[in-house]
Amino acid sequence: MPIAFQRAWDDQDLADYRNTVVRFIETEILPHDEEARRRGDVGHAVWRKAGALGLLCTDIPEAYGGGGGDFRHEAIFFEELGRRSLTGMCTSVHSIVAHYFLNHGTEEQKRDYLPRMARGEIVGAIAMTEPGAGSDLQGVRTRAELRDGHYVLNGAKTFISNGLLAGVVLVVAKTDPAQGARGTSILIVEPEQCEGYRVGRVLDKIGLKAQDTSELFFDDVRVPAGQLLGGREGQGFFQLMADLPYERLMLGVVALAAMEGAYEATRAYVHERKAFGKTIADFQNTRFKLAEIATQIKVGRAFIDRCVADFLAGGLDTVTASMAKLWSTEAQGRVVDECVQLFGGYGYMNEYLIARMYADARIQRIYGGTSEIMKEVIARAI
Amino acid sequence: MPIAFQRAWDDQDLADYRNTVVRFIETEILPHDEEARRRGDVGHAVWRKAGALGLLCTDIPEAYGGGGGDFRHEAIFFEELGRRSLTGMCTSVHSIVAHYFLNHGTEEQKRDYLPRMARGEIVGAIAMTEPGAGSDLQGVRTRAELRDGHYVLNGAKTFISNGLLAGVVLVVAKTDPAQGARGTSILIVEPEQCEGYRVGRVLDKIGLKAQDTSELFFDDVRVPAGQLLGGREGQGFFQLMADLPYERLMLGVVALAAMEGAYEATRAYVHERKAFGKTIADFQNTRFKLAEIATQIKVGRAFIDRCVADFLAGGLDTVTASMAKLWSTEAQGRVVDECVQLFGGYGYMNEYLIARMYADARIQRIYGGTSEIMKEVIARAI
Amino acid sequence: MPIAFQRAWDDQDLADYRNTVVRFIETEILPHDEEARRRGDVGHAVWRKAGALGLLCTDIPEAYGGGGGDFRHEAIFFEELGRRSLTGMCTSVHSIVAHYFLNHGTEEQKRDYLPRMARGEIVGAIAMTEPGAGSDLQGVRTRAELRDGHYVLNGAKTFISNGLLAGVVLVVAKTDPAQGARGTSILIVEPEQCEGYRVGRVLDKIGLKAQDTSELFFDDVRVPAGQLLGGREGQGFFQLMADLPYERLMLGVVALAAMEGAYEATRAYVHERKAFGKTIADFQNTRFKLAEIATQIKVGRAFIDRCVADFLAGGLDTVTASMAKLWSTEAQGRVVDECVQLFGGYGYMNEYLIARMYADARIQRIYGGTSEIMKEVIARAI
Amino acid sequence: MPIAFQRAWDDQDLADYRNTVVRFIETEILPHDEEARRRGDVGHAVWRKAGALGLLCTDIPEAYGGGGGDFRHEAIFFEELGRRSLTGMCTSVHSIVAHYFLNHGTEEQKRDYLPRMARGEIVGAIAMTEPGAGSDLQGVRTRAELRDGHYVLNGAKTFISNGLLAGVVLVVAKTDPAQGARGTSILIVEPEQCEGYRVGRVLDKIGLKAQDTSELFFDDVRVPAGQLLGGREGQGFFQLMADLPYERLMLGVVALAAMEGAYEATRAYVHERKAFGKTIADFQNTRFKLAEIATQIKVGRAFIDRCVADFLAGGLDTVTASMAKLWSTEAQGRVVDECVQLFGGYGYMNEYLIARMYADARIQRIYGGTSEIMKEVIARAI
Repeated sequence: MPIAFQRAWDDQDLADYRNTVVRFIETEILPHDEEARRRGDVGHAVWRKAGALGLLCTDIPEAYGGGGGDFRHEAIFFEELGRRSLTGMCTSVHSIVAHYFLNHGTEEQKRDYLPRMARGEIVGAIAMTEPGAGSDLQGVRTRAELRDGHYVLNGAKTFISNGLLAGVVLVVAKTDPAQGARGTSILIVEPEQCEGYRVGRVLDKIGLKAQDTSELFFDDVRVPAGQLLGGREGQGFFQLMADLPYERLMLGVVALAAMEGAYEATRAYVHERKAFGKTIADFQNTRFKLAEIATQIKVGRAFIDRCVADFLAGGLDTVTASMAKLWSTEAQGRVVDECVQLFGGYGYMNEYLIARMYADARIQRIYGGTSEIMKEVIARAI
Repeated sequence: MPIAFQRAWDDQDLADYRNTVVRFIETEILPHDEEARRRGDVGHAVWRKAGALGLLCTDIPEAYGGGGGDFRHEAIFFEELGRRSLTGMCTSVHSIVAHYFLNHGTEEQKRDYLPRMARGEIVGAIAMTEPGAGSDLQGVRTRAELRDGHYVLNGAKTFISNGLLAGVVLVVAKTDPAQGARGTSILIVEPEQCEGYRVGRVLDKIGLKAQDTSELFFDDVRVPAGQLLGGREGQGFFQLMADLPYERLMLGVVALAAMEGAYEATRAYVHERKAFGKTIADFQNTRFKLAEIATQIKVGRAFIDRCVADFLAGGLDTVTASMAKLWSTEAQGRVVDECVQLFGGYGYMNEYLIARMYADARIQRIYGGTSEIMKEVIARAI
Repeated sequence: MPIAFQRAWDDQDLADYRNTVVRFIETEILPHDEEARRRGDVGHAVWRKAGALGLLCTDIPEAYGGGGGDFRHEAIFFEELGRRSLTGMCTSVHSIVAHYFLNHGTEEQKRDYLPRMARGEIVGAIAMTEPGAGSDLQGVRTRAELRDGHYVLNGAKTFISNGLLAGVVLVVAKTDPAQGARGTSILIVEPEQCEGYRVGRVLDKIGLKAQDTSELFFDDVRVPAGQLLGGREGQGFFQLMADLPYERLMLGVVALAAMEGAYEATRAYVHERKAFGKTIADFQNTRFKLAEIATQIKVGRAFIDRCVADFLAGGLDTVTASMAKLWSTEAQGRVVDECVQLFGGYGYMNEYLIARMYADARIQRIYGGTSEIMKEVIARAI
Repeated sequence: MPIAFQRAWDDQDLADYRNTVVRFIETEILPHDEEARRRGDVGHAVWRKAGALGLLCTDIPEAYGGGGGDFRHEAIFFEELGRRSLTGMCTSVHSIVAHYFLNHGTEEQKRDYLPRMARGEIVGAIAMTEPGAGSDLQGVRTRAELRDGHYVLNGAKTFISNGLLAGVVLVVAKTDPAQGARGTSILIVEPEQCEGYRVGRVLDKIGLKAQDTSELFFDDVRVPAGQLLGGREGQGFFQLMADLPYERLMLGVVALAAMEGAYEATRAYVHERKAFGKTIADFQNTRFKLAEIATQIKVGRAFIDRCVADFLAGGLDTVTASMAKLWSTEAQGRVVDECVQLFGGYGYMNEYLIARMYADARIQRIYGGTSEIMKEVIARAI
């Protein structure tokens, strides 16, 4: 009998929705994952299929083409991808972009983009990080100058998830460099309509093999003035800060699901695999490692569940969300590493889920704000 | 502004009760702690005062003289002692003894002992561990032979909390050695009425200086047959197992409270203490350590709160309770160790709370079932 | 001024030799590494060039075509590859195979194979592990039956380093299955001359991208009876055990070199890269991490150096060598992980050395005997 | 057969000397340790006996009454005390004081104090740390004003090892407060001859129960001008820095010896103690823990031995010595903690060596420069 890691927030409707998600993943994503990993992106078709099934923008109001659900629907898709280490389709960034539109966009921007995003017609991306600049917003050098009703965009971005497939990119740029962080704005860019917009390399990473993390280059790209997110300059910083609890909670949710997936895969493996005349599960070392792992998951589950409840109730602050991101991704790193060890040599082979999980897990402590940034945020609140 | 570690289960009534508890501790326990630590026990008076105020047996029905409350009332007393490392008055064992009576005692036994325990007239203790036998119930060698309506008790026990002050001791003994664990019974022994009962040394420990942890010796002690807990032989094993979730949750609750207390004391200290021209809190290393500690507490708090909720709803299983004990006491060990380090040399001086916390914390991973026993219990469920 | 990690065993002659090695690596290996990683093997040419320069079989007597040097010469090549994470050319296995010939082969076998191996004409491999069998020699199912002056070989092997390029493979097989480990023998197999010998997939791994780790299949492969290593059946177990100190020390040497390489790369990076207006090296967290890393390397260096000295003096026992493998590869895992973190997002990109080091490091705790096997070996000696 | 942790620097003469030391410890210190721990100091007699036997100032030239040996003789006494956790007689501070005289004292000062210290007639102490000032020399507030051929000393010190028994105290004071660290000097104070000199409390600590760590107070203490160490003002800072490698290496030596002692005690215990029908040593968890501990000791031994060799050759720099202190005391903390756990409840009882070791070990990461200070020192060299 396995140990149960029940979510406090699950109910029957959600269980049905989860089944839909699982079926979609097992028929539309899993069978193509190996190819996607080889190619470096999942392609557009699967995004459209997900949209058609109502799996995208689930927490966006129906008025804007969304599912009218809440964070729990989002969580379920993240979880079921996360526990299978299907990291190609970066739905979290897509959802974050949708939230930027919902929370900060003008009515027109919402009506223009959200339905298309919900249908999976356009994939969303956020272009913030620049070469050599990390999480430091002050250091943004991409420049947007207003001339004749257009912003002229120049600069370079890197580590952009969904960078190749993106149909809409929120580009963080300086509209008033003299003002530091307060001179930052977000432009809505549609790559297909922009001369001077160029996708650089799809980056070769330790893991996330099916995810089209890319460099972007802007060379006198002309963006109509109406494409300024929210319609007012200098709001970039606040817009980026506003959704941090949402973004960090997501990463915590994914981390927990990955730990659960790793645990289940490992539990099955050690009961099956033999060494020195018994199963690996018979060794006290294996049993203690699994007990420690199960304990960490159970503890983390309670914490993430409380964060989800707080978020649904509108009360998840950035500090607690940063703790969720920090603790869960650090725990994921430890747990997946120990699971690999229990698999022995097979744990190092990419045909095994646990190997892909290991390679994918390493970025979790880095992106969305490194563990060090999380600690800074938490420390400031102490 | 400190980070808040709010309990999910707190309410206004409990807040009032907590105030009562805090006042009692600050007037009746704290001022005498140093003396109690020197002497090695807290004396009888404080138990009677606690009883008079209704702080003992709070979750025992009023019909038996108890408070008619629930686990939350118990938790509050444990927490407020735990956060101050006031480990002399071992209320957890007292409560466990009360629960043994409530859950397994005959009606007469309940009526006889529970009211006196609730009033603090008699302190409860459990005599299970024997020299050289640890947590292994099979290895119990204390013998109880039925002769002429009395059990004749022979054997030795060690590590008995409240051993010196106890007015009632539940002695685990073999009534039928041929039957192994199933030949185990629990006898209710009142030291004052027993010839041949002897309290050995009050043990000199790393910490828990005010707690009268003792050796006990039984030399042809005659216990009336009616003093068999529950009235039937061979029930000892089941009686001991039945309350494990309660006992382990308690230790988890105490561990969390100790972590919170250590965190608060350390946070205050590093903001005040100067080194190299700034406060210790200004160093990034200090800030990161405190952020990690606060994160662990927040995570643990959510978990313990869920365990408390499950326990109140009657659904806390032994495996999850073992996880609570394991994770919380291990975290306590790490956290208190790091807090000591932030205090520097002062952290090693017993006049500082953090030093006493350090010495007291070490036993938490050992008693009530070692971390290794917890892992065994969890592993068996996997 | 960087901290020095001087080897106790270095001298001027070795420094000259090291220069030769470094020049070879920088001209013949590094420029082709990316291509080799893409292809999955380094090709034959580089082996021949290394042989021509005298970089192979350096510790094999000149009488057999070797370099007539000692373990230090071997160590230098391992180190310079290891610090650059050039894991494609598996010289350690090549050297181990040469030692098997030297220590256990017949005079004829030595004269036949060692000169060709030293020239890099044939690459060596050892085929021990079988699908589902790990480090457990008892579980070997590959069968070698003697018929008409030939051993008929049937079975499958996996995780075979140099498996694709190998010109000579030492195949561990059961010649007498009734005898367990003592019924094990090693056959010398030349793939090119064998019908029924098949190289399966080159395995897709987390790292070691340029290394041709392969599956091997034997389907009624006929091996002349004279190709039995040492000429006597049933010696396989002892032959495999005899060189364990050599093999494990190698892995320890590589681990230390990798740590040193990771440290140097990271030290350079953090001094150059800016964030929030200073270099990353200015943050106390970075400085403390680097200090901890440098300390671990310095400690490990002293230990490995002593092991090398003991090995050169003929006194390195298997237990101490197992400690060298265990401690160094575990330290490597920790250190490289922390270095990745200090690189932030760049640490996850394969174009950076540290990313390749991370992916490569994970197997070190697994192959050549897992950390758990090492602990078993050590525990048995206690 | 236990794993051997042989010192690289041992020889037959030293083995004989070690036997003398062990005999002294077993007859003169061990039998009185319990009493010394109760009282809080070891008394003067044992110092004189040690002196009579030639165990003090062993590395001081014979011309000054010392043993004419070297660091290895010092190390042997530290080791044999350390492995038994006999921390009452703080010989390390005594030796450091002797070195201050030897390296910085005037010829007259050397001739006056060293012979008496070697005979154990006077015990040495260093008074540097002040209440609230830690390792920060800048913060020294104790003031020495030169008036009429005397320094008038005012101030308070704390955490002074040997503070009660000391017959000579090196007091760090500001002679020229305007000059910061460069205004610091060291005064040689003989408590018995000083009015206004007062020993405060012998501090109540987590461990080091037999060590007379004390507060000192100076109230217009008049010290003859000739009692300035080295005879020149403003040299305090340099004098304190000069011997850091010596002091830190000592602490590393003690830490390693403590680990070895803990390992031996635990190894013996787990082979003897039974649980669940086998010895504790039969459990894989126990075996793995001991294997990890033995490995750490073996690694640390090689490192400390190299540091000792470098020190004897005059080439141990402060950075490497700081690594020795950092790594060894951190490893000691981990190892002793795990040993306590393997002892279960007995590990918490002060009658067991391991319990005393646990309480004593905690200060090692703090005094003589905290782990954080060590990291600062190392980081500065990177």
